[in-house]
Amino acid sequence: MTIDYQARLDKLLDQSKADLVAFVPGENMVYFTGLHFHLSERPILGLFSRAGLSFIIPELEAAKLEARPELEARRFAWTDKAGYEAAFKEAVAALLPADARCALDGQTLRFFEWRALQRAGLPAANTLDAGDLFLNLRACKAPEEIANMQRAIGISEAALQATMEWARPGLTERQIADRLGAEMLERGSHGHAFLIVLTGEKTGLPHGDMADRVWGDDEFLLIDFGATYNDYPADITRTFCYGEPTARMRAMYAAVYDANKAAREFARPGLTCSEVDQVARAVIEEAGLGQYFIHRLGHGLGLSVHELPNIVAGNDQVLQPGMVFTIEPGVYVPGVGGVRIEDNVVVTDDGVKVLTSYPREL
Amino acid sequence: MTIDYQARLDKLLDQSKADLVAFVPGENMVYFTGLHFHLSERPILGLFSRAGLSFIIPELEAAKLEARPELEARRFAWTDKAGYEAAFKEAVAALLPADARCALDGQTLRFFEWRALQRAGLPAANTLDAGDLFLNLRACKAPEEIANMQRAIGISEAALQATMEWARPGLTERQIADRLGAEMLERGSHGHAFLIVLTGEKTGLPHGDMADRVWGDDEFLLIDFGATYNDYPADITRTFCYGEPTARMRAMYAAVYDANKAAREFARPGLTCSEVDQVARAVIEEAGLGQYFIHRLGHGLGLSVHELPNIVAGNDQVLQPGMVFTIEPGVYVPGVGGVRIEDNVVVTDDGVKVLTSYPREL
Repeated sequence: MTIDYQARLDKLLDQSKADLVAFVPGENMVYFTGLHFHLSERPILGLFSRAGLSFIIPELEAAKLEARPELEARRFAWTDKAGYEAAFKEAVAALLPADARCALDGQTLRFFEWRALQRAGLPAANTLDAGDLFLNLRACKAPEEIANMQRAIGISEAALQATMEWARPGLTERQIADRLGAEMLERGSHGHAFLIVLTGEKTGLPHGDMADRVWGDDEFLLIDFGATYNDYPADITRTFCYGEPTARMRAMYAAVYDANKAAREFARPGLTCSEVDQVARAVIEEAGLGQYFIHRLGHGLGLSVHELPNIVAGNDQVLQPGMVFTIEPGVYVPGVGGVRIEDNVVVTDDGVKVLTSYPREL
Repeated sequence: MTIDYQARLDKLLDQSKADLVAFVPGENMVYFTGLHFHLSERPILGLFSRAGLSFIIPELEAAKLEARPELEARRFAWTDKAGYEAAFKEAVAALLPADARCALDGQTLRFFEWRALQRAGLPAANTLDAGDLFLNLRACKAPEEIANMQRAIGISEAALQATMEWARPGLTERQIADRLGAEMLERGSHGHAFLIVLTGEKTGLPHGDMADRVWGDDEFLLIDFGATYNDYPADITRTFCYGEPTARMRAMYAAVYDANKAAREFARPGLTCSEVDQVARAVIEEAGLGQYFIHRLGHGLGLSVHELPNIVAGNDQVLQPGMVFTIEPGVYVPGVGGVRIEDNVVVTDDGVKVLTSYPREL
């Protein structure tokens, strides 16, 4: 299936209220042009206006544009030897007449690139941060995007199953992570999007650092991970305990399990993100653990592991068919540990389809 | 060996000519504080002034600060529900009196974070981009940093040897890359820094995309990769050909081989980066291939795969003992292919020590 990048770019420019939109390597560049560049210290800017697509680009990356003649991209190339200042100046002079407005991907574009644009003549007053617009345009997924995520999820879950048939207390976090990483690669993951393995009281840190800590008997093991397929990730969390969890650990698990289930059953188009967050939060609050659910319920999933919609209290964005997001309630009790159960869902016409199917029971 | 983060931060602030330095998750935060956070849509800012260290930080990441009481870090915390605007305002009000100057890590800090700082009251006129300063302070490595890179190199080279004993024409780029990735993990790599496998005429793209292309007989295979150990990477390239390379391919290889050797033997403290680039470039120009050597000779290597010193024409930075950098001449002939041979060296008192030892012969 051929992706219509021109249509995506036109929609972006139309909604930007600007004369030109600017983006840098990363998921936005992949979504709007199909081009994969590395975001490095060598600046690459994609610039789209009514005149078409242009790039400020290092000469050594220009072959990737040559390989895509249908983009008809104009080049403002620079070399390591010459540096990039002149290319910025030429591009701004050619594409941004005085008073023209420029909408930047402010979530990704860096301060030094912004300063280079300013030195090239772009006034701050004519510059908008369109970071949210880029993300909003990516929020409703096309069928092939969902198919890629479903494939990444299938790889992830098969790899987790193989890993958990092997894993046992006594292994370190890194040993378990390395095995899971290898199992994903073996099944066709293109690298992996994310891989965190935590044990014991460290599971109480939502974004803890993996290390050589040994998984003990009767301790929680929390695995937050995802394979990648054609640039699209899975993002799954499961929490395990072999042996005898304490009554408190079982209560924590039950509250998170029920909150995850409640949100999956409740979510549907027309609801706000805040309402979906609230239904899960209420379950955990009723269990007396509300103070330990210290993050949003979930986030959009697509080319980026974290994107829109943001399933958080106070967010009035309305769910629409095609949106893909995570449902990942968690409780984190200092000194005890944490539980998170994370699934990936796509909004349908009357509810959500749960894309993940790995068992959720403790 | 305990790292003296306070001394690193003091030096940074002293040289910044500012009242406060600001940095975001990534290698700079690791180097100056030892803290590992993920650079995500949730802003985290480290702020250092004479008053000490402060963080604008999501509540759910705050446990990582609690685990480091010796940093005595003040917290401006925010929650998913409340958002981050108030935390930015409080921090700027508390730490940046009117006329105070703020030096940002402009290589990493993003436009949306800059705009949030502005809304919180930081004037553009009082803001410096200190991105190069951060990097310059990291350029000369301590012995334990070099030891970590040496370990990453050892893992990388052993993994490459195991992979090349198995690899043969008929495999795809991805198959070779997956095997190499697994071999690195097995040997203790913490993930990997970089992994590109290209074949045939695609080797003519210095930063080409890996795919399912099959390595053909008599074709170049270019592998640019590196393991990671304790956050420190290796960055190695070797180019292979099984079968019968053409005379042209052999000439390309010989020129790059000689250029790599010339630079390794020539580099020493007191030379400028430009001079080292030139000695390798002259060899390739003499072979009549100068037009195909389209990038700098090399780059610094440390917590970041690309850092200072920048071994490029026109750069007058002087080599000093302890600097670690790559020597990676390459020629890329469209339609034919490319050759790159990349080694990692550390500057000694009277030359360089070559940290990489994988055979360089075709």
